[in-house]
Amino acid sequence: MKKIAVIGGGAAGLTAAVYALRANSEVVLFEQFGLGGLIANIDKIENFPSYQSVEGWRLANDMANQAKKLGLEVVRQRVLSLTKNDDGFVIKTDKDEYVFPGVVVSTGTAHNKLGIEDAYVGKGVSYCATCDGNFYKGQPVAVVGGGNQAVREALYLSDICSEVYLFVPSSHLNAEEINVRVLESKQNVKIVFDSSVAKIYGEEFVSGVSVFCGGETFDYAVNGVFVAIGALPVSDFIQIDGLNKEKGYLVVGAKCETSVNGLFAAGDVTQGSLKQIVTACADGAKAGSFAAAYAAMVTKNK
Amino acid sequence: MKKIAVIGGGAAGLTAAVYALRANSEVVLFEQFGLGGLIANIDKIENFPSYQSVEGWRLANDMANQAKKLGLEVVRQRVLSLTKNDDGFVIKTDKDEYVFPGVVVSTGTAHNKLGIEDAYVGKGVSYCATCDGNFYKGQPVAVVGGGNQAVREALYLSDICSEVYLFVPSSHLNAEEINVRVLESKQNVKIVFDSSVAKIYGEEFVSGVSVFCGGETFDYAVNGVFVAIGALPVSDFIQIDGLNKEKGYLVVGAKCETSVNGLFAAGDVTQGSLKQIVTACADGAKAGSFAAAYAAMVTKNK
Repeated sequence: MKKIAVIGGGAAGLTAAVYALRANSEVVLFEQFGLGGLIANIDKIENFPSYQSVEGWRLANDMANQAKKLGLEVVRQRVLSLTKNDDGFVIKTDKDEYVFPGVVVSTGTAHNKLGIEDAYVGKGVSYCATCDGNFYKGQPVAVVGGGNQAVREALYLSDICSEVYLFVPSSHLNAEEINVRVLESKQNVKIVFDSSVAKIYGEEFVSGVSVFCGGETFDYAVNGVFVAIGALPVSDFIQIDGLNKEKGYLVVGAKCETSVNGLFAAGDVTQGSLKQIVTACADGAKAGSFAAAYAAMVTKNK
Repeated sequence: MKKIAVIGGGAAGLTAAVYALRANSEVVLFEQFGLGGLIANIDKIENFPSYQSVEGWRLANDMANQAKKLGLEVVRQRVLSLTKNDDGFVIKTDKDEYVFPGVVVSTGTAHNKLGIEDAYVGKGVSYCATCDGNFYKGQPVAVVGGGNQAVREALYLSDICSEVYLFVPSSHLNAEEINVRVLESKQNVKIVFDSSVAKIYGEEFVSGVSVFCGGETFDYAVNGVFVAIGALPVSDFIQIDGLNKEKGYLVVGAKCETSVNGLFAAGDVTQGSLKQIVTACADGAKAGSFAAAYAAMVTKNK
């Protein structure tokens, strides 16, 4: 019986599981947190094909249930390392060790930090507006960033908070225009371009930020700071010689194969051109299909 | 105002439209038939992310409505040619002529023919079980082919028809194992490997087929013949120098760009590694995003 491991339970990993299971492979998925990955934290998703609008948690849930119904086995352990020996790929977790002939890595990305916020994380600093926005109802908040993520966070918070300051490190927003236009029309949103947050202050909880802009420093009274400056791929745990990466992103070919035989990758952890839910899913479909085919071949040859 | 054309209204084209519209581009979609493309002809879809099972027409409809709600303009004309001149890309239809700065081609594929069935098309010969299967309730039918499409057609017909003969040109089925196993368990399905349908006969309507197998010819009494031997890309209408194709499939890069500046392609018409609804959608997301960005750049420079 062929068998593959999927590391990471977001959109890419769940779709990889669905495709591998339908190709009659056993699939063990490693995920220490809830299934659905980043999707589960998104308020409303309006660009996933066929849905005019869907709550993130619902889409995540539906994807997870689809895979579970096909027989997905989920291991709720933290993966510490992925190595390779003569038996195959070795996955070491905080609890156990496993060996598989084929593996799909779909660990996504982890959020970047400003580097000045550590003392206030959970005390006013957050990386997820849909998770924590409600704590700041009717209060002024700051969002830091200039991409899709920052615009989405600011939009979401503008319906909850009294004022939203969006501190953009460059001179323009690099985000979907449809969202930018809506954001610009919001009365309680103030976008500050070419700015950098130099300091976060407050007694126990955040009470304000010092922002450097145009050669001067300004203070803004805010109770929350949402950091939305992108993320970095989670790939350091892979310790295999000859694995091709670009700035930490796994380089994959048309079949989502990495430079290591039998190792496939899908979604945000890869060097793909567009980071979207649907492209992560498509990666997953490819990685799951070809990983299952690889596992079948290896298993047959043994 | 930037503006792009999408040629072909299947999963790839509709997703391209959604992404371009959300990037604030006008989108004109050319489709002579109904929206949804091949999806609309599939009975049940169980591998599109988040749906355990969904009727093809419903998924097609939901995708079309998502794009329409964002302001999609649909031109129900047949595209005769796509050429390029100094003004941009020229789309000539059976009724009119249009010019666009950027174009997404998502015309998919057209079904292959056996070459012996022309006299009986619509009189017992069909290319779509979900479209025509019901005409053969309780009657014996033949399916010709050995891939996913043939297996899916045979499965669908096995619940409707008295007997289903699956004539496979090679020695094995090259299809999703989950479907193959179900098919093999069906009492009323007979799979004939290494066979080729030499003749279709009948007075006005089909009454049987002659099948060549193992050096001999056998007659099978059937009332319907479903031809499921794949398809070829619809790309001949593009008459632009320097367009890179492989066996008719458009060669695209990581942004779904073709070898012609401003021309993008998505879905089954491209040389992609896995032909699935979700991969077509992901192509569409890329092609739509980058075509809109290209159109914005060209429009600004004029």
